[in-house]
Amino acid sequence: MSQERIYLDHAAGGWLLPKVQKELLSFLVEIQASPTGGHREGREAREQLEIARKRVADFIGAKSSEDVIFTSGGTESVQSAIRGWGASVRQGTIYVSEIEHPAVESAVRRLGESGFQVRRVKVDSKGRLKWDDVKVELGAALVCVHLAHHDLGTLQNLGEAKQFADRVGAKLFVDGTHGAGWVSLDVEKVGADLVALSGHRIGGPKGTGALWIRNGTPWVPWMEGGRQEGDRRAGTENLPAIAGFGVAAEEWVKSGEKFRNSTRKAQKALADGIEKNISVARLHGPEVGDSRSPAHLAFSFAGLEAESLALVLDRVGIAARGGSGCVTREMRIPPGMKGVGASPEEARSLILFTLGPETGLGEISRAVDLVKEAVQRLTSALPS
Amino acid sequence: MSQERIYLDHAAGGWLLPKVQKELLSFLVEIQASPTGGHREGREAREQLEIARKRVADFIGAKSSEDVIFTSGGTESVQSAIRGWGASVRQGTIYVSEIEHPAVESAVRRLGESGFQVRRVKVDSKGRLKWDDVKVELGAALVCVHLAHHDLGTLQNLGEAKQFADRVGAKLFVDGTHGAGWVSLDVEKVGADLVALSGHRIGGPKGTGALWIRNGTPWVPWMEGGRQEGDRRAGTENLPAIAGFGVAAEEWVKSGEKFRNSTRKAQKALADGIEKNISVARLHGPEVGDSRSPAHLAFSFAGLEAESLALVLDRVGIAARGGSGCVTREMRIPPGMKGVGASPEEARSLILFTLGPETGLGEISRAVDLVKEAVQRLTSALPS
Repeated sequence: MSQERIYLDHAAGGWLLPKVQKELLSFLVEIQASPTGGHREGREAREQLEIARKRVADFIGAKSSEDVIFTSGGTESVQSAIRGWGASVRQGTIYVSEIEHPAVESAVRRLGESGFQVRRVKVDSKGRLKWDDVKVELGAALVCVHLAHHDLGTLQNLGEAKQFADRVGAKLFVDGTHGAGWVSLDVEKVGADLVALSGHRIGGPKGTGALWIRNGTPWVPWMEGGRQEGDRRAGTENLPAIAGFGVAAEEWVKSGEKFRNSTRKAQKALADGIEKNISVARLHGPEVGDSRSPAHLAFSFAGLEAESLALVLDRVGIAARGGSGCVTREMRIPPGMKGVGASPEEARSLILFTLGPETGLGEISRAVDLVKEAVQRLTSALPS
Repeated sequence: MSQERIYLDHAAGGWLLPKVQKELLSFLVEIQASPTGGHREGREAREQLEIARKRVADFIGAKSSEDVIFTSGGTESVQSAIRGWGASVRQGTIYVSEIEHPAVESAVRRLGESGFQVRRVKVDSKGRLKWDDVKVELGAALVCVHLAHHDLGTLQNLGEAKQFADRVGAKLFVDGTHGAGWVSLDVEKVGADLVALSGHRIGGPKGTGALWIRNGTPWVPWMEGGRQEGDRRAGTENLPAIAGFGVAAEEWVKSGEKFRNSTRKAQKALADGIEKNISVARLHGPEVGDSRSPAHLAFSFAGLEAESLALVLDRVGIAARGGSGCVTREMRIPPGMKGVGASPEEARSLILFTLGPETGLGEISRAVDLVKEAVQRLTSALPS
């Protein structure tokens, strides 16, 4: 059965890259020694840890792998980045949009509650942050920007974000948990100060993430306790998963162009197919092209309800996500959809199709037919 | 080579239990779907997640598996427990010893910095907390106690801790990251309110932990963002590892008595052998028996330096830990050793031998000879 299913929820979790599978397999029967051990097993673990660190550093163009720390995932990386900066500067201003991922939004709110100024950056109809008319404050500041929007797939212009950050004397935090790999990210070229990464979104294991911290950035550790990760992230290192993350990062350095190209083709075929065949379908965020992550498509199907449609899609054989990929309890309308001015009807009918490197044109062609079928089924089931 | 090595650093990381290996293997080639997905793959993931949650709940005698949330490890569980309680009550008193694990100590310090009272609980010469002469404060309060001390292996009397907590109207936090499985822990019988667990210390995967929160306990989430884990722990669930943790928990429910008995025998053989053969060796914490975790032995070798001795042990074929299992930068003397009144000379020569369920009597017999050899080698290398 599972070969026949079409899985399009990769942003939430997809297949491990084959080399990652192999790497994880090699750890299963080995001693799970801690890199903190002074013995041979510990030294070997430490070597593997540092190889993974170098691979992740290379993946984001970091000059020094020492500036990379491993975390338990994208959420922890984001929380640690923002709250760690806040705990270091103690007061200041955060410049951030209203369409950020809940991990960013909740960290910003926490700082807001403890006395930080929060200045909101507006977005245009495609979800791009607009830096021109942002009210500027004096003092310590952090500019928060994502690489790719988790729902809309919008790629942000990091150059503009950096210009703004320089103008106001702010540090630049890039949430790369969506987008890294799928689009070029060179922390040195961007001039970022803090960058959050997620391992599973590049075909690495769940439970892995990284935080890159430019040397000298005001920041204090958030996960405290033991001395792991150079006293910057406490807790026994999850070496098998970290090594898998490292292998995934290396795979993207080697084969990222191939992954991007093939996924871009599948994405375009899916978007074109849906737009041609389903009249109520509307793509939100940028058109398929250089302004959009190759992995993300956000379609509304006005008149239908997202969760019902996702259920029917599931019945006909497509795993996709109904509603935002990540919302908090109080978010009834996905902030991204609100931000780009989608109607409530559109916002309520949002389906996210997220692709992986292995998503093929053949299954996309079938997917278009199945999406059409699902929309027809659900529409005909509704009272007219 | 590796069969010949004797690995005695299990508290830092040992082998996965065979059934855990098998469970993790089954996930490698499967889609890593998120339990948040509404599709079939997501539902299946959710089922597996809830099976694991039930297994961990059963492991600690929790009535409702809903009160268990999964984290990235023991450190996160501890930080989330203490800081989440603090963020909920906003002011109050923490009763805690000075020999806690750095994860506990750092969370307590953070709360202390933000206005909480910290009342220190003294320990006796075996590392047991003494509740009698603790100064009591009014208002919200948290009693922090560990199940087994991470260095000394001392088992705490949770009944006494609970009596004290009831007397002062405090909630009871049990750090079970060392000790769970190795000693009986029934959260209902103990009357605990918050319990932290580590997955890898029971032969589960690294990167797993759990926090049990009694329904109604004042507590707010610490890792914030998405809605995972019933809005109590944000971040994509690391399902493969969580499932492995669940299998490990189940194995301990089934075979814990066997694990404890065989490890206790190995522990006794190692302790007796070292004490008989090495005159400077001194066991810290309780004697081998019901007051000590079967997994932990803390020996000092007065006159020698811990890291040098660990290095020589490594050369002769034993992986053990020199110095405390977990210290922060400022801890030059392990707090546990200071707490029990060890001399500085003893504290500087601490070697931790931590055992796993697979540690056998044959290797222990060899280990005794090798420890003796290492001590002799290092002693003769020193200027007399």
